[in-house]
Amino acid sequence: MTYCVGLQLDRGLVFMSDTRTNAGVDNVSTYRKMHSWEIPGERSFVLMTAGNLATTQAVVSLLDERNLAPSERNPTLLTAPSMFQAASLVGDTLRDVISAQTNGKPKSVTTFNATIILGGQIAGTPPRLYMIYPEGNFIEAETDTPFFQIGETKYGRPILVRAYDREMDFARAVKLLMVSFDSTIRANLSVSTPLDLQVYEADSMQLGYSRRILDGDPDWRAISDGWSDALRSAFDSLPDVEL
Amino acid sequence: MTYCVGLQLDRGLVFMSDTRTNAGVDNVSTYRKMHSWEIPGERSFVLMTAGNLATTQAVVSLLDERNLAPSERNPTLLTAPSMFQAASLVGDTLRDVISAQTNGKPKSVTTFNATIILGGQIAGTPPRLYMIYPEGNFIEAETDTPFFQIGETKYGRPILVRAYDREMDFARAVKLLMVSFDSTIRANLSVSTPLDLQVYEADSMQLGYSRRILDGDPDWRAISDGWSDALRSAFDSLPDVEL
Repeated sequence: MTYCVGLQLDRGLVFMSDTRTNAGVDNVSTYRKMHSWEIPGERSFVLMTAGNLATTQAVVSLLDERNLAPSERNPTLLTAPSMFQAASLVGDTLRDVISAQTNGKPKSVTTFNATIILGGQIAGTPPRLYMIYPEGNFIEAETDTPFFQIGETKYGRPILVRAYDREMDFARAVKLLMVSFDSTIRANLSVSTPLDLQVYEADSMQLGYSRRILDGDPDWRAISDGWSDALRSAFDSLPDVEL
Repeated sequence: MTYCVGLQLDRGLVFMSDTRTNAGVDNVSTYRKMHSWEIPGERSFVLMTAGNLATTQAVVSLLDERNLAPSERNPTLLTAPSMFQAASLVGDTLRDVISAQTNGKPKSVTTFNATIILGGQIAGTPPRLYMIYPEGNFIEAETDTPFFQIGETKYGRPILVRAYDREMDFARAVKLLMVSFDSTIRANLSVSTPLDLQVYEADSMQLGYSRRILDGDPDWRAISDGWSDALRSAFDSLPDVEL
């Protein structure tokens, strides 16, 4: 499994992904699930993947190859005129990779499935954040639904729902993501550190702060250890129930 | 879907279940998922169900009928000599009901599946708590795994993992369950109030405090509203991350 979150804030976008892949609990590996492309000053993209590793690696490789050898017939991430067209390109590529494995079987039942979060900005348009499905279609984050999760989404959702605020600064957003990932990692063996973090500041037109968070990262340890105590204190602070 | 939790404490057992059943989001009903049987002074059982409603109703009806018309060949809940044999009886009944629907198809792939939590005590033996699978086999709660969840288990798990303490009193355990249910209900439409609560005090040999918690229940409202604020305060109390 996997856990990735993309947050849309007034200040920009924040992405976090884990790195654990597993084919059974006895075949566990570490793979980067966050990828990025940019032409500084003109466009920046961050892409995170959940699902079949062969599928997601193929999608990323195809997007890379097309960037290196663009043709007139096929747009590339680095030439797409809009974020919408960039998302269409990623969705088409994802659908084609899955179709090649499944000979047209319905996508929702195959083990070759994958889901993608794509965020970024092209100069002259606002930052955008998309969730792209195995069928190649996609939805965009809006005010009412300002973040996307893929993979093992449930454990880490309650704190996102409650503490997200679109006006929050990047440091607070990273703290929120760390808490959400900590809740997930403690509950599910298929999600694990190291984590990858990428910040994109709106209208900067270049990738911002990034970091690989290892298990011993002091900020991560402080959040992870502190959250247990904070949760218990929060629980203690609630009124007692009269039986 | 459904959410039910059974907690094993030093003082006894605590059970909570929701009441929402749905066949699609346009066919939502309220059904009690918690059932109990007892011979005061001798034995008490509480049973909670998740899964196909026809299956779980059939299992409860069969257990009821057998209690009313016991035969020498078939033990009943009210005559089983041990909790282990009571769990075996429930498991066998569950497996038989599912088998009748599936003509021997593997149980794990059928929509007729159900899972059951059974807890209680028979005089002369300690209280026990079991989780019973569609295949009819079951596992028992122990010190290392002192609670069972069935249904929509993920959203409410992080707080259980962190705040559970086997020495806690019943009022605190109910508070913990309310928080766990609140996290689940806010995230998932398929789980909803009213909630059913049943306390069983070890060695009392009779069902203890019980309550149906409606959406407007003052304790429930205080926990539900208070938990949002408490979580946000807990989040604020964590150290900032240095970017």
